[in-house]
Amino acid sequence: MKNSKWYIEQTSPDEVLLHSLKEIVYEGSSPYQRIEVIRTGNFGKCLFLDGKMQSTEADEFIYHEALVHPVMILRENPERILIAGGGEGATLREVLKHPVKEVVMVDLDDEVIKVAKEYLPEWSDNAFEDPRVRLIIDDARAYIKSVKNYFDVIIIDLPEPAEDGPAFMLYTKEFYEMVKAALTENGMMVTQAASTSLINLKVFVSIVSTLKEVFPYVKPYLAYVPSFYSPWGLALASKSIDPQIDREYFDKKIEPIKKTLKFYDIEAHMAMFSLPKHIKTAINKGGVIIRDDAPLYFYQD
Amino acid sequence: MKNSKWYIEQTSPDEVLLHSLKEIVYEGSSPYQRIEVIRTGNFGKCLFLDGKMQSTEADEFIYHEALVHPVMILRENPERILIAGGGEGATLREVLKHPVKEVVMVDLDDEVIKVAKEYLPEWSDNAFEDPRVRLIIDDARAYIKSVKNYFDVIIIDLPEPAEDGPAFMLYTKEFYEMVKAALTENGMMVTQAASTSLINLKVFVSIVSTLKEVFPYVKPYLAYVPSFYSPWGLALASKSIDPQIDREYFDKKIEPIKKTLKFYDIEAHMAMFSLPKHIKTAINKGGVIIRDDAPLYFYQD
Amino acid sequence: MKNSKWYIEQTSPDEVLLHSLKEIVYEGSSPYQRIEVIRTGNFGKCLFLDGKMQSTEADEFIYHEALVHPVMILRENPERILIAGGGEGATLREVLKHPVKEVVMVDLDDEVIKVAKEYLPEWSDNAFEDPRVRLIIDDARAYIKSVKNYFDVIIIDLPEPAEDGPAFMLYTKEFYEMVKAALTENGMMVTQAASTSLINLKVFVSIVSTLKEVFPYVKPYLAYVPSFYSPWGLALASKSIDPQIDREYFDKKIEPIKKTLKFYDIEAHMAMFSLPKHIKTAINKGGVIIRDDAPLYFYQD
Amino acid sequence: MKNSKWYIEQTSPDEVLLHSLKEIVYEGSSPYQRIEVIRTGNFGKCLFLDGKMQSTEADEFIYHEALVHPVMILRENPERILIAGGGEGATLREVLKHPVKEVVMVDLDDEVIKVAKEYLPEWSDNAFEDPRVRLIIDDARAYIKSVKNYFDVIIIDLPEPAEDGPAFMLYTKEFYEMVKAALTENGMMVTQAASTSLINLKVFVSIVSTLKEVFPYVKPYLAYVPSFYSPWGLALASKSIDPQIDREYFDKKIEPIKKTLKFYDIEAHMAMFSLPKHIKTAINKGGVIIRDDAPLYFYQD
Repeated sequence: MKNSKWYIEQTSPDEVLLHSLKEIVYEGSSPYQRIEVIRTGNFGKCLFLDGKMQSTEADEFIYHEALVHPVMILRENPERILIAGGGEGATLREVLKHPVKEVVMVDLDDEVIKVAKEYLPEWSDNAFEDPRVRLIIDDARAYIKSVKNYFDVIIIDLPEPAEDGPAFMLYTKEFYEMVKAALTENGMMVTQAASTSLINLKVFVSIVSTLKEVFPYVKPYLAYVPSFYSPWGLALASKSIDPQIDREYFDKKIEPIKKTLKFYDIEAHMAMFSLPKHIKTAINKGGVIIRDDAPLYFYQD
Repeated sequence: MKNSKWYIEQTSPDEVLLHSLKEIVYEGSSPYQRIEVIRTGNFGKCLFLDGKMQSTEADEFIYHEALVHPVMILRENPERILIAGGGEGATLREVLKHPVKEVVMVDLDDEVIKVAKEYLPEWSDNAFEDPRVRLIIDDARAYIKSVKNYFDVIIIDLPEPAEDGPAFMLYTKEFYEMVKAALTENGMMVTQAASTSLINLKVFVSIVSTLKEVFPYVKPYLAYVPSFYSPWGLALASKSIDPQIDREYFDKKIEPIKKTLKFYDIEAHMAMFSLPKHIKTAINKGGVIIRDDAPLYFYQD
Repeated sequence: MKNSKWYIEQTSPDEVLLHSLKEIVYEGSSPYQRIEVIRTGNFGKCLFLDGKMQSTEADEFIYHEALVHPVMILRENPERILIAGGGEGATLREVLKHPVKEVVMVDLDDEVIKVAKEYLPEWSDNAFEDPRVRLIIDDARAYIKSVKNYFDVIIIDLPEPAEDGPAFMLYTKEFYEMVKAALTENGMMVTQAASTSLINLKVFVSIVSTLKEVFPYVKPYLAYVPSFYSPWGLALASKSIDPQIDREYFDKKIEPIKKTLKFYDIEAHMAMFSLPKHIKTAINKGGVIIRDDAPLYFYQD
Repeated sequence: MKNSKWYIEQTSPDEVLLHSLKEIVYEGSSPYQRIEVIRTGNFGKCLFLDGKMQSTEADEFIYHEALVHPVMILRENPERILIAGGGEGATLREVLKHPVKEVVMVDLDDEVIKVAKEYLPEWSDNAFEDPRVRLIIDDARAYIKSVKNYFDVIIIDLPEPAEDGPAFMLYTKEFYEMVKAALTENGMMVTQAASTSLINLKVFVSIVSTLKEVFPYVKPYLAYVPSFYSPWGLALASKSIDPQIDREYFDKKIEPIKKTLKFYDIEAHMAMFSLPKHIKTAINKGGVIIRDDAPLYFYQD
């Protein structure tokens, strides 16, 4: 080993990743989690929460473009957007590329936002200063519960639902019902939905099955994010209309922003929503329904 | 850590993977490389050559279907097929699903084939006993050099071109010229083409650029193979016709074998060949041309 | 790394050891603990309980000779011996070299003894078949509590007192009072007493301090055991006479068995009982008194 | 794992140590080696050269007292001292506690001295400013070769003789002959002499055997240094008189400095020079003679 300094991340009971560690940019703790910004050899500056990789300088653009743009394009003319989580500000940055009127971002952990603003300023790119944005430091579930028929798009950008972490109550059927109620008539939501490496497919599939209990139209999709070391699952759900892509419509919508995009275009969109056979097979078999009284935890060391 | 026993794989100077180790099924060495069959917690039985993961019980179907079927369908009615490498026998297994007349497989290392037959018999599934198959233990480059205008499809299924490994002379422009000469008029080839995680894109792009020096039509594509921990690059090249997919043709060709396929279908095909924007951008910029006197090595510890 | 297969042992929150793994000789679980026999590159066959190294083919002789012979020589003519723990049988093997009349060995975990007999037979060397030996499968504390004024020597050979392990109630003041009561007039006991690497000195010192609450004469000592990766603490305690070494007496006692000893002789004895200044300083400062209602745990991952 | 950040040190082909990494205090490279000062959880600030632990805040006092004081006391009234290596300045610090007239320190790597002065100032404790000290940046072997019959004591304090490191020519018979020639009539030398964990005994034994080819009196000894994770070998050699310890003499010599010592006293001295039986057995069997044309390398990754 030429490198001696490593960041060690256990991603499952059977899998550990070592990232070469070049610099400890920041380390600290909030009341909710351990927060670290580490510069690694492969991915540049990386944000870790409770020892789990969240996003990296090298490829955060893939994850954030993949999370934001499909739903923002498939829902026609979204004006009022809610982001649950998204502390780094990069989801917000992508949302603001669209001609929206109001973005509410609700994140539990003020400390993550402060750390990201100071040490990862390119990720939010001053998005928090945009007059259309309102930042609320609160439990996203409590906030969403209080809102009815207001948001055109809701984007769930949260860490994994770990047993001792802050997020596991935001992946349940009850929570998705609150999301549905908070959406406007043709509203759509999207959520990150876990790794789809073969072993973890169960979590992805269960999120999809749970969404299907609540929403009439659910579109699971996948994105390659190298620093996640596995094809990553996402899921888009629509309250009342079947989201369909039309090439002409897509081109018109993407035109004003396409210069700002590094990952997303029509081919990337097609690739993400074209699932390989074994993933469709697993989705068709279905997973467990995740409920408040029977939550599903990702792996936690 | 609940597990104490691990297989440690350094995949780049900045990246190390730990796979939980359940059983040492086989370990030994051939004159060419260290051979290990290890049962891991995540992937079941895994074949490692010189400490690098080659294929696994859990997801070898993805890699082998992705490597074989696109070229076998895009080339109309391929009858004579050459496999360079492919010691596990799984590439052979997939090829034989098609109505071919003759398959020649040339692999340098008899020992890998023996180990795979004994410890991973499901992977070749008796393919070596098929009367259409001829196995040659030799240097694939020397063999291909000796053949002209004979094979309809050539499949290059080799380990990474490591500096001290057996394969680095099978990724050069001179080698691809031999492949082209060995192909029939409308012949096509496919090769595995390295990781496309952001750091390693250079290798993938250089293989594509090198192929373009030799072949008029080159189609780079990607497949998710969880045990490779990164979107994996492949490249298809055609000697004289532009390979195009037609839905009706595809359905007709896939029909007789589709029950045997776990990964590959029209959507998987579309997803693999729809590259995200940043990968197209990198390919358009181009890489280095790999030559016999300037070979390109992947990372070797 | 030339080796890919490793056994990973976390020995403290700040310290992890990797042992190259050559063979999984045995793995299983008893009701009390996970039991593994692993052949490593450095130490040959090794016994691990709950992922912690217990003894190894290469250097178990050091630990077992260091544990057994000082007390067996310092106590004049010991005839009745109790071993608490000692599942591998190697402590028993060393005790039986002396002209004893009766040895009772009490170990909680029958499974460890069976595994050691089958996979590590050289360690007990048929000691369990000796007619002077009586093996009791029981909680050693319960057994000792039931015995009064019977044993000349009691040897405590137990794993570390981990919070979720079986041994932490055998390092308390109350337990040592039971041991004292079970000893004959000039009886002596010895116990393994944890690592004395600088960070862990507190545990060693606390065991010594606790013994001093109960016994008038306590002699802490150290032994180098390479596979323990730190100078290892032990402690000998005497009920009524100050144990002193006399060269002539030592030579006479050691003479009949010295051919069987690989580690222990007068110089090894002197070295073990001559503590460096900083360790004496720490012992003089004293540690906490370990009690049933305030036990001390070693590190557990 | 509560800690995610680790320093990984491979100490042999079969052994790897992980130290929790708290802070990268310094990292850089000289023309000779990679230099790192890392704060670890177990040992505080640590100096690593080429990825190998050299000394630590927590226990450098053990190594440096063990290296310096035995030879300084056994050689009567040493006035002129040579230190070969010793870049951290801690060996110098210990030497200057004695009433010496002149200390020459020869170290190849100016950069290590600068880094130690800046980041580990407690280790040299201003020793470099003492008017009795002369620092020479040069190859210690070349310097010693040029000196005859001058130094009363020579202390060899060098990193391991790695194949690609700067030190392997300072462990050979030819080098020890130069050392002997540079010593005064009753002169003595001491050298660090490698790990004595069971596997590495060969290196220690070979250094002892090689010294015996040159010096009439050779005294191998051992010291516990927790951060070295094994009992560490040292060897003292005398040019003309048999070094013997006399309690009264020892007490007189140690009296003026004993308040400054944390590790070394008469018991520590006795313990270090009382070797256990298996180590004496190995020394009696003897090792290889290390020569300029047949050097011995320690493990290098």
